[in-house]
Amino acid sequence: MPRQVDHDERRRAVAEIATDLIARGGLDALTVREVARAANYSTAIVSHYFTAKRDLLSYIYRAAVDRAAARINRVLAADPCDLHGVIDAILPINAVQIRDWQVWFAFWGMAVADPEFGDEQRRMVLNAQRIFREIFIARQRARLLERDADCELLARLCVTLLDGIAIQAVFDPDDWPPHRQRAVITTALGGMAELR
Amino acid sequence: MPRQVDHDERRRAVAEIATDLIARGGLDALTVREVARAANYSTAIVSHYFTAKRDLLSYIYRAAVDRAAARINRVLAADPCDLHGVIDAILPINAVQIRDWQVWFAFWGMAVADPEFGDEQRRMVLNAQRIFREIFIARQRARLLERDADCELLARLCVTLLDGIAIQAVFDPDDWPPHRQRAVITTALGGMAELR
Repeated sequence: MPRQVDHDERRRAVAEIATDLIARGGLDALTVREVARAANYSTAIVSHYFTAKRDLLSYIYRAAVDRAAARINRVLAADPCDLHGVIDAILPINAVQIRDWQVWFAFWGMAVADPEFGDEQRRMVLNAQRIFREIFIARQRARLLERDADCELLARLCVTLLDGIAIQAVFDPDDWPPHRQRAVITTALGGMAELR
Repeated sequence: MPRQVDHDERRRAVAEIATDLIARGGLDALTVREVARAANYSTAIVSHYFTAKRDLLSYIYRAAVDRAAARINRVLAADPCDLHGVIDAILPINAVQIRDWQVWFAFWGMAVADPEFGDEQRRMVLNAQRIFREIFIARQRARLLERDADCELLARLCVTLLDGIAIQAVFDPDDWPPHRQRAVITTALGGMAELR
């Protein structure tokens, strides 16, 4: 189905450009017209894929979530206990991951008063908590974590730490070099459970 | 100077309305025209105080920061060691504090690509870190915290936890009742330093 493939690719290309627009120009820069201009498409073509700014933002939010999920899955396929590998796949410690966080921040700003976006964000958090819970359970089975550690609370804390660090580090990368991002997480988690 | 007082009051009233608009309708609802309509002023009057949406957002961001600072100062005036009182003055555990966080999220969404807003956010974080550092130092002096505890790292962790919890709790209050918000913070901090 070459026609279908072409559509998907075009949609992805448009989303890629929209993501750059958000990172460089913010939500105000994200308009169908601006995306069309940057993509060198007519607004009619872009409108064929995305009818409105809200639609575009929703798509690039999911694309950023999918990119993060792919990175996480790669780490866990190699080692289901690799907590620090997964954390490194999410923290804003390189240009690609910083851009993903910028998309999420823009989305949160819109989600404040958009119930559907709010639901999407809630599901994303619950999914992230589940991923970490499973890692901690795997670590317990592998005797890398104390048997009585509270995997639920540890998972909740992981997501809290990642979000909290990102919101500071993206706006102040000098104050938050990668080693400091990792140190805050390791110290906070280390206090709750003997991690080896 | 009754004229001056009147101006300040009007500016505050307009900001108050703008804050409600953001919380209920998001960034897209924040226009000089909408604020004028909700305030029952002419757009000319609102424009006299705020020339653009960016100006309005900047003002209500600061107003939310000032409200939080006033709450924190009240707690610390009574007891400079009252860490948990300060945390309770910030966490999204009541309607007023949830609204403040909604304003901050909207601001972050804009700050992604606005260097001045980014600077403002950076300063806000550094100030919050300073407040917590001073609380931990006061607690060390009062022998409520171990002498060798790392006050700098503890302060950084406090701000991280508050931001990280807020971004989850505001979008999912059922999953984050106040007691759970406090439990995550207490557990994470408790692991790093013997707090009494």
